[in-house]
Amino acid sequence: MPGVPPSRFVYLGPEGTFSEQALLTIPAAAKGNRAPARSVPEALDAVRAGDADAALVPVENSVGGQVGVTLDELANGEPLVITREVVIPVEFVLGARGPVAFDAIRSVAAHSQAAAQCRRWLRDHVPDAVVVDVLSNATAAIGAAAGEYDAAICVPLGASRKGLTVLADKIADHPDGVTRFALVARPGPPPPPSGDDVTSLAVYISHDRVGALLAVLMEFAVRGVNLTRIESYPTGERLGRYVFFLDCSGHVGEARVGEALQGLRRICADVRFLGSYPRAQAHYGPASPTVSAADADFADSAAWLARIRAGDLP
Amino acid sequence: MPGVPPSRFVYLGPEGTFSEQALLTIPAAAKGNRAPARSVPEALDAVRAGDADAALVPVENSVGGQVGVTLDELANGEPLVITREVVIPVEFVLGARGPVAFDAIRSVAAHSQAAAQCRRWLRDHVPDAVVVDVLSNATAAIGAAAGEYDAAICVPLGASRKGLTVLADKIADHPDGVTRFALVARPGPPPPPSGDDVTSLAVYISHDRVGALLAVLMEFAVRGVNLTRIESYPTGERLGRYVFFLDCSGHVGEARVGEALQGLRRICADVRFLGSYPRAQAHYGPASPTVSAADADFADSAAWLARIRAGDLP
Amino acid sequence: MPGVPPSRFVYLGPEGTFSEQALLTIPAAAKGNRAPARSVPEALDAVRAGDADAALVPVENSVGGQVGVTLDELANGEPLVITREVVIPVEFVLGARGPVAFDAIRSVAAHSQAAAQCRRWLRDHVPDAVVVDVLSNATAAIGAAAGEYDAAICVPLGASRKGLTVLADKIADHPDGVTRFALVARPGPPPPPSGDDVTSLAVYISHDRVGALLAVLMEFAVRGVNLTRIESYPTGERLGRYVFFLDCSGHVGEARVGEALQGLRRICADVRFLGSYPRAQAHYGPASPTVSAADADFADSAAWLARIRAGDLP
Amino acid sequence: MPGVPPSRFVYLGPEGTFSEQALLTIPAAAKGNRAPARSVPEALDAVRAGDADAALVPVENSVGGQVGVTLDELANGEPLVITREVVIPVEFVLGARGPVAFDAIRSVAAHSQAAAQCRRWLRDHVPDAVVVDVLSNATAAIGAAAGEYDAAICVPLGASRKGLTVLADKIADHPDGVTRFALVARPGPPPPPSGDDVTSLAVYISHDRVGALLAVLMEFAVRGVNLTRIESYPTGERLGRYVFFLDCSGHVGEARVGEALQGLRRICADVRFLGSYPRAQAHYGPASPTVSAADADFADSAAWLARIRAGDLP
Repeated sequence: MPGVPPSRFVYLGPEGTFSEQALLTIPAAAKGNRAPARSVPEALDAVRAGDADAALVPVENSVGGQVGVTLDELANGEPLVITREVVIPVEFVLGARGPVAFDAIRSVAAHSQAAAQCRRWLRDHVPDAVVVDVLSNATAAIGAAAGEYDAAICVPLGASRKGLTVLADKIADHPDGVTRFALVARPGPPPPPSGDDVTSLAVYISHDRVGALLAVLMEFAVRGVNLTRIESYPTGERLGRYVFFLDCSGHVGEARVGEALQGLRRICADVRFLGSYPRAQAHYGPASPTVSAADADFADSAAWLARIRAGDLP
Repeated sequence: MPGVPPSRFVYLGPEGTFSEQALLTIPAAAKGNRAPARSVPEALDAVRAGDADAALVPVENSVGGQVGVTLDELANGEPLVITREVVIPVEFVLGARGPVAFDAIRSVAAHSQAAAQCRRWLRDHVPDAVVVDVLSNATAAIGAAAGEYDAAICVPLGASRKGLTVLADKIADHPDGVTRFALVARPGPPPPPSGDDVTSLAVYISHDRVGALLAVLMEFAVRGVNLTRIESYPTGERLGRYVFFLDCSGHVGEARVGEALQGLRRICADVRFLGSYPRAQAHYGPASPTVSAADADFADSAAWLARIRAGDLP
Repeated sequence: MPGVPPSRFVYLGPEGTFSEQALLTIPAAAKGNRAPARSVPEALDAVRAGDADAALVPVENSVGGQVGVTLDELANGEPLVITREVVIPVEFVLGARGPVAFDAIRSVAAHSQAAAQCRRWLRDHVPDAVVVDVLSNATAAIGAAAGEYDAAICVPLGASRKGLTVLADKIADHPDGVTRFALVARPGPPPPPSGDDVTSLAVYISHDRVGALLAVLMEFAVRGVNLTRIESYPTGERLGRYVFFLDCSGHVGEARVGEALQGLRRICADVRFLGSYPRAQAHYGPASPTVSAADADFADSAAWLARIRAGDLP
Repeated sequence: MPGVPPSRFVYLGPEGTFSEQALLTIPAAAKGNRAPARSVPEALDAVRAGDADAALVPVENSVGGQVGVTLDELANGEPLVITREVVIPVEFVLGARGPVAFDAIRSVAAHSQAAAQCRRWLRDHVPDAVVVDVLSNATAAIGAAAGEYDAAICVPLGASRKGLTVLADKIADHPDGVTRFALVARPGPPPPPSGDDVTSLAVYISHDRVGALLAVLMEFAVRGVNLTRIESYPTGERLGRYVFFLDCSGHVGEARVGEALQGLRRICADVRFLGSYPRAQAHYGPASPTVSAADADFADSAAWLARIRAGDLP
């Protein structure tokens, strides 16, 4: 319901993974109802069905890259919009039932992506341990707590939930890795411009030729709108036909972004608006120019054109 | 006075030159008052001062190129706008007081540009004649009529005015040469879109770098507006700083042209609107897409953006 | 060893998954030695260490998107090159120990990506079955063969390996889905141009601004080289700084591709060449123009320039 | 004859005009033979026929714009190349047979372009004088010396040649106006790069669409070559089909300019090289980057490509 802040949240489960940790950084969610979903499609379907007000799902990992299933759902499923982004550091810990020396560890449970992100650390500190693939970071913590494995790679929240002893923290090979989550809701007016926003789009081009993509980029460039992300994503039909996921600086309510979007609408096979929302500033470089300055330039040029059309030359 | 059709015309004289011939193709001028001016600045100043309603001056010659003084006046003088273009074939005749054989012609009076445009013909037909420079095509006709020269290169109108015998017609080396004239008036609302219009601009860029010009061209390209003419013209300050004269397809009242102009306004040091007027179709290739189609595309994209901003996703 | 065809292959295991199925389409691998690896990094490290001649790893899925870990390894690890691409249809079957009616199926084992790709089919045909996440398509087949689950989503090769009865085939929701694999080897001269090749690059740009990306695309566009894929991928440092993975039509040995690469080298922070190899044609649209035609254009323009520099104007 | 410095010069006459004044700034011409020509075509034909080694002709005027006949000859006549540019200030003086008060001046002889460039001065200082059009600045000086007119607008050289008293100097309305001349010779190897050169081209494009011109500009932009002048010039066939005269920074012997020219050759209907020659520095802004730096970048990228093609990855 427009105007009513969301109180029922769903996130990519299980409990004790990064998604829950990210969701807890949103005050309304920390106070509200939070339910885990088994998959991204399940989480988003809960929102579509009205069973939840918003879903928190991962979209991009500074190590693992795009989260394909989320992009696919946003581009192809029943329309939803991103209303907020949450960026949290990728922090892994090595947890165990109790204190144990590294050279006594024979088995480490880990989700395959977590293992990949801690590969160098594992080789340097527990070179002889067998790394056992499990289905999620939370499953790893559960397995270690149950004594099935000597240790587990898990997220800090998961370790504390299961009462594990943290043998080592910050064990990811890239110390600055982050994961980017999107809070997704049913369509409605976007939050008001904050002065430093991101707009996400899914753009379908008719041809996979450089000329078509160049034309898309020119629509942004001529309006002074910066692209911060671009990803070709297979359409699911055949390789070589793509949808592009684009993030640009600015809010759909701003003149320059609005004009760029209209330009895309005219030249692309299809454009799907995926939301305008405040940038999670701490994790990015300096902000783009403020809304007011650019909007004033557009207002000035519109007034000038009106004078010309009226024959009122200076 | 807006709404009152022009009746007092001035043209680049003297009488009997191409400018008068071009002016006579405009019905209102054929019926109205027509006065020759000694120079382009004098003709335009007559309009600025209110002594004439409109001036017909040359802007471009398919052989001789741009008419610098006209461009300079339009770009730098008190603002005026082009309301109509007239394109007439460059047709020269060789006239004399009476019938005379080519090999009896010892002297030919000609304006230097006319002589240049008929150089090959002169060499082939009257190779032994001395070509004498005179101040205008009309002066040449007068001189031949007075018997000062055996013959004169003149325009058809000039030959008939002075009662000359036409010894040869269509003697220009480029048989398809044309001259383009502009009918210039005091600022006022442009004539309504005709479906096939030209818009003329003078654009000042801050830097003479390719990047700045590329940015100007991109403003047109992204809106699907074709450029039909581009000329860098020295600003009169120092070489290397230029104003660009641009002609594009379309009318300032159309959405795509209006949006492109607004874009130029935002990125250029200055933009001067020089008029939107019907293209003189017979002398160009196929027409650009009709106004209505492009405007419908812009209206559709504006409506789509409005729905997005309202949160009303399809 | 250059000149010696590869005979020892490694692939992303376990046995009975798409990677093994894809590897078997390469004649040298079908006859040679094939070993599964536990992960993409492990497979590539085997090649780097000389324990294998080539590794087959997934790079892109027409449903799930980019395979982040493969891109990360190619962009950041010790250099390797792609020498061949293999594209195979994503075909899933529902397998069981023996014939069983759909409504008698209570549990289905499936890798989470496989489950996502068959979601609609599962909902329509076995709506009451519990889908149990397992670690791989091969694990699912093993579990069904052992009777742990009533059925399993697996790949055709995996079902036949485990002697499963195929209850339904082609159960993926996107019937045309494909997965693209790369055969990766230690650096060496690329295979000769085939007339329809792909060149893969990892390009680092200094700024994440649209202008920098536009400049990259222009390097391709001016040489008439088509981009077939573009993906920004986080550099692992912080979100907002990206490496771009680009696939273009053509071979590094061709003039137009060579000149475009040199241009990138001059304007980008870094460019890593990832290989030139024949396009897996059956899965793409019409081929790009043949090598010889474009190379002839470049040779003609080089000869023309040489004449100009020598003062030998036509 | 290559290697032999030119000694026989021709210039746009008559004597005592700007062209002669400009020619005298070239040391070889000041010492050599100098002959006036009646027109630009005549001057250039003298070079083509071998009757002169080089011709000095005007190409551009910071007030009057392009000199159409020169451009037309260079683009369409038998090939010639520019080997040097000369830029001189446009300086007009008012000369008379002897001292005379301004208010006693009743007639002023002037070439129409000179009168246009001094219009404001004439209005302010000799408002009542009749300005009489004559054929050239030299003719004006001759007429004043002969007593036909009370005064004449002429160039300093012309006034001193005819022994006129200079009543006022620097009377041009634009005090910084300059005229740019080209020294034109028969084709031969261009002078060696000076580190700050200009390259002139005539470029024919198949279509008059913005896309075609954008493509031309992109060829320069991607190689970091600055355009300093661009002019569409009618081809003499029909309005709307143009040849573009382009000046860019750099020398045809430099890698970046050479590569840009090759690109134009591939995409344009025709390209005519009009010369690489040292920039007349005093009249322009800061120099472009030196030759050596850019050439080193191109050499580096060529070496890098050669390593890649050999399979020698870093």
